[in-house]
This record gives sequence, C-alpha cells and structure tokens, in this order.
Amino acid sequence: MDMPQRYALIIAPADAADPREDFADTFTPIDVTAPALSVGELSTQRGDGVFESIGVVDGHANEVEAHVQRLAHSAELCDLPAPNLAQWRQAVAVAAAHAPAGEAVVKLILSRGVEHGPTPTAWATAAAATDFSTVRRDGVRVVTLDRGYDLGAGERAPWLLLGAKTLSYAVNMATLREARRRGADDALYVTRDGYVLEAPTASLILHRGGEFVTPAPSGGILHGTTQLSVYEYLESRGLTTGYATLTIEDVMTADAAWLVSSIRLAVAITAVDGTPLASDPALTAELNRFLLSPR
Amino acid sequence: MDMPQRYALIIAPADAADPREDFADTFTPIDVTAPALSVGELSTQRGDGVFESIGVVDGHANEVEAHVQRLAHSAELCDLPAPNLAQWRQAVAVAAAHAPAGEAVVKLILSRGVEHGPTPTAWATAAAATDFSTVRRDGVRVVTLDRGYDLGAGERAPWLLLGAKTLSYAVNMATLREARRRGADDALYVTRDGYVLEAPTASLILHRGGEFVTPAPSGGILHGTTQLSVYEYLESRGLTTGYATLTIEDVMTADAAWLVSSIRLAVAITAVDGTPLASDPALTAELNRFLLSPR
Repeated sequence: MDMPQRYALIIAPADAADPREDFADTFTPIDVTAPALSVGELSTQRGDGVFESIGVVDGHANEVEAHVQRLAHSAELCDLPAPNLAQWRQAVAVAAAHAPAGEAVVKLILSRGVEHGPTPTAWATAAAATDFSTVRRDGVRVVTLDRGYDLGAGERAPWLLLGAKTLSYAVNMATLREARRRGADDALYVTRDGYVLEAPTASLILHRGGEFVTPAPSGGILHGTTQLSVYEYLESRGLTTGYATLTIEDVMTADAAWLVSSIRLAVAITAVDGTPLASDPALTAELNRFLLSPR
Repeated sequence: MDMPQRYALIIAPADAADPREDFADTFTPIDVTAPALSVGELSTQRGDGVFESIGVVDGHANEVEAHVQRLAHSAELCDLPAPNLAQWRQAVAVAAAHAPAGEAVVKLILSRGVEHGPTPTAWATAAAATDFSTVRRDGVRVVTLDRGYDLGAGERAPWLLLGAKTLSYAVNMATLREARRRGADDALYVTRDGYVLEAPTASLILHRGGEFVTPAPSGGILHGTTQLSVYEYLESRGLTTGYATLTIEDVMTADAAWLVSSIRLAVAITAVDGTPLASDPALTAELNRFLLSPR
C-alpha cells in the first residue's frame, strides 16, 4: 500500500488533440491534507474513473509510456474523454520531480468528474513507497480465490470492464483482506472454470521448462506494465517468454512463480494454498535490480 | 440519475455503541460546490466504501430503517466499522429537512476514509430528484446483459461483495451505457447460467399466474429496499409474493414486470431485447402512489 501523499496537483484535462507542448498552466499544486474534491465527485460516489500507479526511483518515473497508454485504454473502455497523453506525461514528470528520494509512487487519477459537470476531474499525487525489501527477498504466500467469472467473461461482456484499471477497487481490496484472514499475504484469482488470472493488484509470471509464461491478457485480465517490462528484460537476455492459459496445477508445478507490479515489483510466490512452491532467489533479485533501474 | 446536490453534511462517525440520543454536534454542514474531501480519500482512490440512496417526498424520507440497516450490512461485508444507526437516522432526518420540496434524494456515503487515516469518512447529501413521471407512466425497454457470474458466485465468494452496496459502481454505470448504446433504457443482468438477477440500479419484480415473484436475494444480488416495500404493500392487499430462481423466459411470459428502486420507484418493463412485454398500467400507477406516500 502507498504511504500518505506528500505532493499532489490537480490537472485541468486538455483535449486529446490539443497540440501544445507545455501544459504547465493546466496544473495546480494543492495541499494534500486540505480538501480538494467536492462531494459531487463521481470518483467518490461511484468509483467512476480510471487510474495508474507508477513506480519512481530517486525521482525517475519508470514505464511512463506504458502507464499513460494504459490510462488511455482504460478511459476508452469507460467511455471517458480521451486523455491528452503529452499532458499526462508532463504531469508524471512534475509529480515525480516532487517525489521523495528512494522509492516512491506517482498515482494518476482520471475521474468522470463532478456529477452533471462539464469535464472530467484529474489529479496526480506523489508519495514515498512502502518498504517492500523484505517481501522482495522472502516472497509471498498466496491463496487461490474465486473471481466468479469464467475465462471468456471479459471478451464476451466488455461492460464488466475487466480490462480497465478503474477506481472501482472495492472487490480487489476485499480479496486481499480475505487472503490475510486465511493467513496468506496475497491472493491469486481463479476463474470459475479453473484458470488462474492475476492477483488483485499484480500480474502472475511462471518459469517452467526453460520458458516464462503469463496468463494471456484477454478482456478478462489487466495487461500488466511490469509484466511487459520483465518480458522485455528476459527477452534481452535471450530467454523465451509467452502467453498461455494456465491452471492452478501449472502454478504448483512451476520451477518458480512471481507476482509482479509497479511498486512492489517482483515477489516470489513461496506457497499456494499452504503448499510450498519452488523459487529462484537469484533470478528474483536480478529482476528487482532491473525493475529498480531507470527505464 | 440525481440532480446536483443542494445540501451536504459531513458526519464524524460515532462508535456503534455510543448511546447518545443527539448526534447533532457530529454533523458539519458544508458548501456542496466547495472542496470537502482530500485526494487521499479511499472512496475516490478505490471506490472503497458503501452507500444508500433514499427517496424523499416533501421532506419525508421513505424506508429509512431498511436503508440504514442495509448500510450496516454493506459495511459489515466490507469490514468497515459498524455504523451507529441512531446517528445515521438523525443524519437522514437533517438532510431530508434540507431537501427541496417535491421528490428528492438523500444519499448516504460511508467511505473507508483517508488512506492510513484513523477513521472512516462519512457524509450525507440532499438534492432534487430527476423527474421520473414519464418513465413511470411509459415504462422502460431493457436489454439482457451478461453479469459474468453464475448464480452461486455470491454465496461461494463473499469477497466479490455482490450483496453489498459499495461505491465501486463503475460496472453498473458501464452496463447502463451499453444498454443505451443498444437503444434500450435499462439493462437486466443475467447470470452466465441463464438466470435473471436485477438491473444495475433496480430490482426486478414479476407478476405471473396471480403471484408476484422476484429473484431470490442470495449473496449474488442486492436485497432491494423498494422491492421489500412493494411486497409489504401487495401482501397488505392480500396478494401472494415470493422469491424464486427466474429465467429470461419467465420475464418474457410474465403478466407484467417491473424494475423498482428508491428514487425512480416502479417502472414497467415494456420490452426485453426488443420483444414487447405485457404490462399493467393501473397496477404500476397504484404501486407508485403507494411508493410516493409517507412510509
């Protein structure tokens, strides 16, 4: 989880076609502890908006392009006005410049705006990241939890917004609480028909038989920016990566398994539903060194 | 949809066991157009909280007890601190007293609060309601849309929060947009295994063979406060009501079908996926006269 915000700026959303190179006059820094949003905000009333969490290391924001592109994709799935990507890139840069040293997180939020209002509401925050060094070293125990959907639900029913990173995260948070109640650190979502999908806030990657695989990003799964980065890294080392339909059995019998995400980065799955899993501490450390480097 | 808020008060949540009779000093009226919430609010960041919308007619709030009880039930499902019901009843009364004449809506919101903060954030708003007189007279055309889940998902997987009225309503809103794209006014959610559940913001009631039926409120469906009121009314008239597992075919062949909710009240379903449905304008009008009367 993030630490309290230290810096925030309100963004007056520009039209996607606005050709300006400098959007500085659309940013308004605010006091993060002061009231900034009205109770008419649809983000608060209905979780109606989209977001991104970007890892920042010593002021450098990582994977910015993948994050702003996914923000635009999520906005499209939610019928929100297309964000101006140049404006959002600049907002990330400004927020990252105000982030504390070490590991930090820049969060982008694009809300549908105030009810009956003319435009979306948008803002970015910067805060120190939680210290995840222990879990990066020791890994996480996960429990498998039913996502309720079958594997085809996302493609069949795009109004379920399974491919969008929306502000409606109550279920993701409830799933993490259930995992902790069961004595685990995290959860692995499983479809009704027995396939593994992702964790509530992370993607799954397996190493098996010399190949790295992750569940195919269909409409039912969020395409992980960190997973894409890890794949680029592995491929640059000449390793084979791919997408597949995976079962719990595939996870249990993998040579190693990780949950990867933008802030916690790569953590080994050390147990699934109480059964220990093989892991690869050297490769985990190597992946995290890569993920902490400027990209 | 609601109109812009006209009145709002922030509620400092009291402990559920607080025995006070007067909570007036825990209410702070605010300017609804002014900033009131910080960007650290988990309602905005993750749709992490619960809510209720209460119908108000000429200053009288209807079904208050059912709504505050459901708020408490939703809070429990979301592991939020139990609300003090006396405090919330009083908040409803204060907000309703400030609601405009005619039909209005009082909305209650209980958020998990500011990230890493000590307590939930809570507020109530009052606003004029949209004029639904035309749709109450003419009814709505619905399309059936896949909810992705099977009928047992809610009971099997309580972390999906299907029985809680959470602020994570992005999917409900996307479903209504999809219905409108398809030329309909509203949607009827159908399970993966072919059963009808509810509309994104309303409950379904059918009249068939002299009996009124609604889908059984399992963990997979929100128990509608208006549906309960309608059942009480029908029973007081000596009519038979019940709960059942219902299919689309049951809707298509019903003598009449309604969507019922706290603000729009009872509206006839006049078509399902383009096929006209029988309706009962006299009973619809009677139900709405009852629902508009003080209860």
